Amino acid sequence: MNGGLMKYSDKVPEPTLQRLPWYLSNIKLMREKGETYVSSTQISKQINIDASQVAKDLSYVRISGRTRVGYEIDALIEVLEDFLGFTRMHKAFLFGVGSLGGALLRDSGLHHFGLEIVGAFDVNPMLVGKEINGIPIYHSDDFERIMKDMQVNIGILTVPINIAQEITDKMVHGGIKAVWNFTPFRIRVPENIVVQNTSLYAHLAVMFNRLTFNQE
Amino acid sequence: MNGGLMKYSDKVPEPTLQRLPWYLSNIKLMREKGETYVSSTQISKQINIDASQVAKDLSYVRISGRTRVGYEIDALIEVLEDFLGFTRMHKAFLFGVGSLGGALLRDSGLHHFGLEIVGAFDVNPMLVGKEINGIPIYHSDDFERIMKDMQVNIGILTVPINIAQEITDKMVHGGIKAVWNFTPFRIRVPENIVVQNTSLYAHLAVMFNRLTFNQE
Repeated sequence: MNGGLMKYSDKVPEPTLQRLPWYLSNIKLMREKGETYVSSTQISKQINIDASQVAKDLSYVRISGRTRVGYEIDALIEVLEDFLGFTRMHKAFLFGVGSLGGALLRDSGLHHFGLEIVGAFDVNPMLVGKEINGIPIYHSDDFERIMKDMQVNIGILTVPINIAQEITDKMVHGGIKAVWNFTPFRIRVPENIVVQNTSLYAHLAVMFNRLTFNQE
Repeated sequence: MNGGLMKYSDKVPEPTLQRLPWYLSNIKLMREKGETYVSSTQISKQINIDASQVAKDLSYVRISGRTRVGYEIDALIEVLEDFLGFTRMHKAFLFGVGSLGGALLRDSGLHHFGLEIVGAFDVNPMLVGKEINGIPIYHSDDFERIMKDMQVNIGILTVPINIAQEITDKMVHGGIKAVWNFTPFRIRVPENIVVQNTSLYAHLAVMFNRLTFNQE
């Protein structure tokens, strides 16, 4: 395989990283339909993004397409999945087994995209010691101890907003390197810590607003 | 209350709509701590966004703050929640009761932000006729019939990518006005239909990439 695959010497722009999974899912569909080659022009047409943008985005993954026939589909899927990190397992802890936290523990789909939740933390005595979907729930006080035994870089934040910052600080202090923040709270972290915000409620707000706007 | 509240005559920019829930959660925390007034400067400091940006964002919700003391917290929370659509219930159907779909059905948290999932659709005979979290699961073929009996505007898309477009077309044909798309597939809809993309996998890709980048 391409020796450049595992190197991320350039910081890939976030919009590119967000678009690459779109290309990946479209290319997978094309493979299902029996195609063996795909060009950036074809991808462009299917998902309605400028062909030069598609080509530029794909240039980050360093696979060489042939100018006339395009990319070999099998190879492109493999390279994209690898580049996006979906082929390696990334271990994560989840903090806050409430409604959303419990739902994420039950979503085995994350596993197919390289995320393995290996443990969850909460203070609720009804939950501590139990398992959801095979994932053990520990008491939050045990986090630093358990962290020492496991190589976990990612923390999923699904706690109430009033403790969002406090739990983030604990995570970072314990050695977590990336926080996937599902709370609507804007957490602060040291510069070397990655934060990915996924606020379902912010997305709801946008959708409600657009819906009302369209209906007037 | 302010008579302009329910009017959305200006199209609010998406970044503003995404930031307003941050302000809301911070202001709620301030209220918990016993504060009664808040200024845009205070909000700005707490969440590290330029004060002029905060003031500009808040200007969309049409609440009048007093120049010296700022906004009354109770009123601002009420106005923001109303403006963001969290105080009215928006009915939704969910399409595709797989791993993520099932998880969303179990997430009662959405209810607190104005989204009520009133039914789900799938073709799996193990699921059709059952309930999850009190929400009935119907056969996909019954969608148009059931849609006729209920006032539902929102469709949540959690199907496999190979049927994402087909199911979207069915939704729109049946009268759905907004699609909350959780698939990594870029669906196409007529111009008057709202699409909100929430791709957890795209967010994972960004997080994995940043994590690897930081570790080199």
